[in-house]
Parts: sequence; structure tokens; C-alpha cells
Amino acid sequence: MTAYRYIVIVGCGRLGAILANQLSRQGRNVVVVDRDEAAFKNLSAEFSGFQVTGDAAELAVLRRAGIEEADCLLAATRHDNVNLMVAQVARTVFHVSKVIARVFDPSRQEVYDQFGIETICPTLLSADAFLAALARAPEAGS
Amino acid sequence: MTAYRYIVIVGCGRLGAILANQLSRQGRNVVVVDRDEAAFKNLSAEFSGFQVTGDAAELAVLRRAGIEEADCLLAATRHDNVNLMVAQVARTVFHVSKVIARVFDPSRQEVYDQFGIETICPTLLSADAFLAALARAPEAGS
Repeated sequence: MTAYRYIVIVGCGRLGAILANQLSRQGRNVVVVDRDEAAFKNLSAEFSGFQVTGDAAELAVLRRAGIEEADCLLAATRHDNVNLMVAQVARTVFHVSKVIARVFDPSRQEVYDQFGIETICPTLLSADAFLAALARAPEAGS
Repeated sequence: MTAYRYIVIVGCGRLGAILANQLSRQGRNVVVVDRDEAAFKNLSAEFSGFQVTGDAAELAVLRRAGIEEADCLLAATRHDNVNLMVAQVARTVFHVSKVIARVFDPSRQEVYDQFGIETICPTLLSADAFLAALARAPEAGS
């Protein structure tokens, strides 16, 4: 069986919406949570998942998103603190098997690691991409 | 000859500082510009480049950073608008050959392309990383 069939995405900004649209297109069950109802405008017309308006730092909101059925949670708000808190709750309270959080501050990745939370750091990914672009020789070559 | 010997980096936040430290370590001439002098605390003790305090949207500040000698400019503030403006000035006024800008909003990459500015989008890089992590099977496999 290919995993992750029920995915809760916290944050429907640019990143959350890209993930929601893409995973929905892959036929996964997707629930997107955002405090701000206006954020859901980022979802495509084809998005077939559910939208939950509320603060994902509240257990009741995560329950409404069906976290008890979820096998995956993606914490994708623009706030490292919120992502850490939500990811930690998903792991320790709801025992969600796969939890991945966006974290802008590379020095905080260690904290996440301790809780068994995978992290994705846009800052480091960008730094790598900049350095790779500079390592390539300019058009003239050698 | 390996290019880019004189690199101006605009923005000394997390990303700018990582790039400055790394490129300085590679032996390049690096000048970092930030409006906020406190940002330079992100630079490592080994950083051997120059720091310029000022608003890089002003031509005089870019000149102070030696942009007329630069063969590369990296626009790495956290503001897409600032990055676009600075990158555009570097290309059109100072004819810097390599200009790369961070842009959070994927829909703005097109604008940059029109000006011959390479872009690096943390949002898309992160989305790819999340999707790649989900595409991998969980520990149990198949």
C-alpha cells in the first residue's frame, strides 16, 4: 500500500495551498486548516479536499480536521513557533506517524529532531540553490 | 578563470549571512549590504568581506558597496519587492552580469525573467521537498 492517504495540512498560504492542490490531485484525502478563511482562495478549483477554519494550535480544531484518522501532518504556516507546536501535538498527542514541519530558522531544526519531527528549511534550501547557481561557470565557460 | 570574484549580497538576514559566510570562505570578495546594522551579527567571526549599512534601493548605497566592480549581485532580503527593485537596478543601471534574487511569490518569477534576473523561490523549493518526502514509502516499505 502506498502511504499517506489522509493528510492534514496546517496553513493555507502559498506553500500550504501548493501542497494541498498537488496532493489532492494525487488522489489523497486532504484537509487544510487555516485561521483565516480568506487563505482558502489559494486552493485551485479542482481541490477536492476539506477546509477547516480555525487555530490549529487548539486540539479541538485538529480533531475537527480528523487528525485522529490522519497518517500524515504537514505544518506549513509561516510561523516557526506555530509549526513546532502543531507538529509536536500531532506526534505526542495524536501519534501521527509522519509529521513534517517547515522551519525557517535552521538553528531550530535540532529541537524538532528531538521530537521525531522531520523539518524542511526554506532558508537552507535557498542557500544551496544560490551556491549551486554560483558554482556553475558563466556562459563563456571555463 | 572561475567566475564571480566580487559579489554584492543585499540583505544580511539568515539567508544573506549564510551566503556571505560561505562565499567569503571560498575566497571571494564579498560585500554585504543591510539597512539594519544589527543584522551583521549573523556574520561569522571568519567573515573577511565588507559590511555596508544602508538601503540598497538607493544607488549611492550600491555604489558604496562597489557595485561598479561587482560581477555578481544576490538579492536576498525577505521582501520580494526590494529584491526585484535592487536586482533590476543591478542589471539595467550597473550591468552586473550575474544577478540572482530570492522571490517568495512563485507568480512573480515571470516578472524577474523579463529582466534577465535569475530567481530562487523558497516556496517552490520547499513544496518540492515536502512532496519528495511524502513520495518516499514509510519505514515498513511497499
